[in-house]
Amino acid sequence: MTTQEQLHQWHELGQQLRVDSIRATTVAGSGHPTSSMSAADLMAVLLCKYLRYDFDNPHHPNSDRLIFSKGHAAPLLYSMYKAAGVISDEELQLLRHFGSRLEGHPTPILPWVDVATGSLGQGLPIGVGIALAGKYLDQLPYHTWVLLGDSETAEGSVWEAFDHAGHYTLDNLIAIIDVNRLGQRGQTELGWNTQAYANRARAFGWQAIEIDGHNLIEIDQAYSAAVAVNDRPTVVIARTKKGKGVASLEDLGGWHGKALKPDKEEQVIAELGGTRHLIISVDKPEEQGQPASLGVAQPLRLPIYNKGTKLATRRAYGDALVALGAAQPNVIALDAEVSNSTYAEDFAEIYPERYFEMYIAEQQMVAAAVGLQVRKYKPFASTFAAFLTRAYDFVRMAAVSRANIKLVGSHGGVSIGQDGASQMGLEDLAAFRAVWSSIVLYPSDANQTAKLVAQMSNLDGIVYLRTTRESTPVIYDYHEEFPIGGSKVIRSSDCDCAAVIGAGITLHEALKAYDRLKNEGITVRVIDAYSIKPIDVRTLHQAARDCNGNLVVVEDHWIEGGLGAAVLDAFAGTSNTPIYNGSQLRLVKLAVRDMPSSGTPQELLHAAKIDADAIVEAVKSKLTSSLPKGEGVLNCYYPEG
Amino acid sequence: MTTQEQLHQWHELGQQLRVDSIRATTVAGSGHPTSSMSAADLMAVLLCKYLRYDFDNPHHPNSDRLIFSKGHAAPLLYSMYKAAGVISDEELQLLRHFGSRLEGHPTPILPWVDVATGSLGQGLPIGVGIALAGKYLDQLPYHTWVLLGDSETAEGSVWEAFDHAGHYTLDNLIAIIDVNRLGQRGQTELGWNTQAYANRARAFGWQAIEIDGHNLIEIDQAYSAAVAVNDRPTVVIARTKKGKGVASLEDLGGWHGKALKPDKEEQVIAELGGTRHLIISVDKPEEQGQPASLGVAQPLRLPIYNKGTKLATRRAYGDALVALGAAQPNVIALDAEVSNSTYAEDFAEIYPERYFEMYIAEQQMVAAAVGLQVRKYKPFASTFAAFLTRAYDFVRMAAVSRANIKLVGSHGGVSIGQDGASQMGLEDLAAFRAVWSSIVLYPSDANQTAKLVAQMSNLDGIVYLRTTRESTPVIYDYHEEFPIGGSKVIRSSDCDCAAVIGAGITLHEALKAYDRLKNEGITVRVIDAYSIKPIDVRTLHQAARDCNGNLVVVEDHWIEGGLGAAVLDAFAGTSNTPIYNGSQLRLVKLAVRDMPSSGTPQELLHAAKIDADAIVEAVKSKLTSSLPKGEGVLNCYYPEG
Repeated sequence: MTTQEQLHQWHELGQQLRVDSIRATTVAGSGHPTSSMSAADLMAVLLCKYLRYDFDNPHHPNSDRLIFSKGHAAPLLYSMYKAAGVISDEELQLLRHFGSRLEGHPTPILPWVDVATGSLGQGLPIGVGIALAGKYLDQLPYHTWVLLGDSETAEGSVWEAFDHAGHYTLDNLIAIIDVNRLGQRGQTELGWNTQAYANRARAFGWQAIEIDGHNLIEIDQAYSAAVAVNDRPTVVIARTKKGKGVASLEDLGGWHGKALKPDKEEQVIAELGGTRHLIISVDKPEEQGQPASLGVAQPLRLPIYNKGTKLATRRAYGDALVALGAAQPNVIALDAEVSNSTYAEDFAEIYPERYFEMYIAEQQMVAAAVGLQVRKYKPFASTFAAFLTRAYDFVRMAAVSRANIKLVGSHGGVSIGQDGASQMGLEDLAAFRAVWSSIVLYPSDANQTAKLVAQMSNLDGIVYLRTTRESTPVIYDYHEEFPIGGSKVIRSSDCDCAAVIGAGITLHEALKAYDRLKNEGITVRVIDAYSIKPIDVRTLHQAARDCNGNLVVVEDHWIEGGLGAAVLDAFAGTSNTPIYNGSQLRLVKLAVRDMPSSGTPQELLHAAKIDADAIVEAVKSKLTSSLPKGEGVLNCYYPEG
Repeated sequence: MTTQEQLHQWHELGQQLRVDSIRATTVAGSGHPTSSMSAADLMAVLLCKYLRYDFDNPHHPNSDRLIFSKGHAAPLLYSMYKAAGVISDEELQLLRHFGSRLEGHPTPILPWVDVATGSLGQGLPIGVGIALAGKYLDQLPYHTWVLLGDSETAEGSVWEAFDHAGHYTLDNLIAIIDVNRLGQRGQTELGWNTQAYANRARAFGWQAIEIDGHNLIEIDQAYSAAVAVNDRPTVVIARTKKGKGVASLEDLGGWHGKALKPDKEEQVIAELGGTRHLIISVDKPEEQGQPASLGVAQPLRLPIYNKGTKLATRRAYGDALVALGAAQPNVIALDAEVSNSTYAEDFAEIYPERYFEMYIAEQQMVAAAVGLQVRKYKPFASTFAAFLTRAYDFVRMAAVSRANIKLVGSHGGVSIGQDGASQMGLEDLAAFRAVWSSIVLYPSDANQTAKLVAQMSNLDGIVYLRTTRESTPVIYDYHEEFPIGGSKVIRSSDCDCAAVIGAGITLHEALKAYDRLKNEGITVRVIDAYSIKPIDVRTLHQAARDCNGNLVVVEDHWIEGGLGAAVLDAFAGTSNTPIYNGSQLRLVKLAVRDMPSSGTPQELLHAAKIDADAIVEAVKSKLTSSLPKGEGVLNCYYPEG
């Protein structure tokens, strides 16, 4: 039974959270006080009675997790931290200030924030990832609580989360929708029609509980029912009022994302009963439970491929992931319904308990990976490179979350052949290079793939690997090493007239071109730039110096932002790039420029002018032609369009 | 009543579509015969009785539209075209051949295909866009039919479509889900649980009809009920068998995306009753209806801003869109629940009948834009630049669709200030540059914004405009012109020691730097690169020649793929790029490299080292330092990291 004392405490805390949300945003001069006020009662009851959290040890394996999917309610979250006694009232006044860890939207700069939010519709799918870890990997009883706004339920990713949580019967996941009826610019699609939300949630297999989100007893009962259920996730659909508690704000339009002016603030705080400094003793997890064991680490035994045989790098990815799975029991695989194309299926077969089928829901897949790494697992998520574009906002936000996830895109480039343009990843390298702190890898052979996959596991941040559909010859011995940031000079002589830089499928075209040119007495250097980011600046500079500045870059990717851009940046420099002091640079960038169609891989490589023919032509017709002396600095050519 | 004759025709056509799907894929050696066979009966009844389509005039305003959201069933679609008499049996055998218009997945290379599909979960949201056009703009009775696979309902974008179609009561939209139970690698999430699909659809406001998808009478009745309803969209949930009609394929795993070998083909065709060559006389639209008038075009009167005043370019976008709305009645605006931030709200207020609120569903927003342009409207879709990443796969596919859409991303860069990294578009320029045939614009002042918005409307392809949150000074007179592919040299002299290239917010930092440097006796050229793609190669080359090769590029974007990359490409060249023949190039690339936090715009520009201070330092400390003579080719510097 709820006592009067409890009710009083919850009420007081709710008012404190409102007042503090207002105070912090008024000092900041911006922020979302009214969006915080609508959820204050919901969070007050959670903090006082239900949340099991050890603020001194945020990574306690059995701690509940709390995600503010409505990241703009950050003032409320930070006010909860004040109420929990872990940040001071003074720090709270630094909200949104430069240098403060209380950013406008939550980020893991704060030790109690697991993931960044602020791109709406991401908190729930990430919560699904944590709940998958809790139920199936950790096998610990903690709950994952996710506070959503009502507006964000328009995001399809929220329904991917409803779908997957239902499918995986995540009874440890509790979503709370703060149905305050008002979005940024007016009424939401469903207004206060909480029944519509409930019907949708139930259709996806959830327990749905409609409540008045300002009735403390109803909130208490709903949470109680949520933690009691053991066969499905729960959503608490709380009818609330934006700006609740202040007559001049409550349920009124025009107040989204607006801080109160100091004069209004004073009056409003008085209306809410003044400033309070309650400290809540938040319950710690009841058990000191440790995550379940996922097996004993074996020595890493990467697959070995014989030189001269042919194998697709995607196939080697599958093999290597299985090997990694034995060596690292915390490696987890995810795939979006194409595991028989990416070859994640091999891992799924051998380690079914560490594989999660994400069906065709790439946003949910990447979000689940982010959730899994919150619990220190090492997720590898794979699909076609083209379809990872579906999750680009999730990748962007994963970087803000400082998440450690590994993404694998198969079927890169026109060389996939007959399936046509919709299936060809042609922008993935550009997209992933433009992710903060990312690493972008693109192997050309099976042994190299295995070595790179093994390294990926131990790299922090967003690590992307592009694999190829077609079988390609094994060109490296299995004991060769391929450090991140390196490259391989696989053909060279003392009199190379040009360096051809390729990666993945185009490296093999470069090798064909090498043979043909050699037959004609022209020797070129061939460089395998398997590490697109970071790129091997020193080897490229050396090649330019040795080859009279003649470089040909060839890639199965749009001409913007991929390998060619990475090579240019190596000469333009980055913060760690030495200055190039060599001869005049004459660079030919071979890449895809016309929209591809269907055809055989070789027909399409030829049509895109990224095959051996195009390389031979670039080397012969262009680089051997004379240029005006002392004029050209970076003279670049393209085949006729 | 359905006659025996009709039933016989439908059956025969269904078998023909199956046989033809098999024949075409066997010749091709790849493709998806079994996924085509499951939907053959559904499409046979549609073609014979319900579809209203003038194959001789595919753009007939009152034609029904048919989208294969399950694009991998392309063999079925092409077999329908053969049955309609518009492609020959010979052409059908060219499926997936290089040079054939029958690509592996449908593209608008074929006159009867409105949009490319093959990235699953896109056909229905695009269908929503067409249905919005049909019901609210054209006001014509045509229907939009969308064939979906069951697997693709895992995509959140499908539920964005269910949500929006329900919200807008699109009774002219009919979805058909081919529930063949088997995805690419095994059973789907819901298997044959058609009731689960129906419950979900109904919860989103749809009429849902469950049928046996091989029972011709049930199909007929379902379509009849679908076209009769007048207050909501309809989904026909058809339980089917993959590979239906062939015992050795039917409902069996392992047959996804596999063509039959010629020996098996022969036996299977016999089992299906042999090859047929029925030609169906498809009914044309009953009416010659013309789209409703959306008003009379007025002369274009762009807003005019006085030099020296301050205004955000996003604000000018709103003004310009209103002006364009008067001049071009086919301009339509869409926004994802942030119209009071992007200022699309001004258009919405004046032209409510030409504005569609897409709520927070960016995928649906871009898809709706693609659907609207199928009907020759000119959609402008806006949200924060950061959140357009949510729709990147839809943008990618819009390019494959050769769609003409205008996308506007506001709040680009760290200069948005306090809201923090989650709201900052820092990869948008890289992402949009790497879209086939795209145009990327980034204005720095209000008059320029207006002129660019006016031009956008008449440009084909994917046109992206980035606007800025902060107010910036109006620096251009209202009568200046800003051609696509151009730039503006806004400060220059005969003795410029460097050229500073900026766009948007950084241009104003460049101007501040100019003033400070001038006070110290250092003159620099300042270039406004408002057209990021295509970039103004000639002006950049001239600047390099005139400024002793000293260039400073400064952008509010990650260091990869944005303005700096575009400038480098101008010297590396593109197919239309002249060779640079000037002095040694020494390029400084100033861009965002560390993860930003909250702060004032000026604090964040400074912290990112993309403000006037950084530009002054780059010009002074770096470019005026001497380099080893005759060595550096492209010598680039960065401020200390």
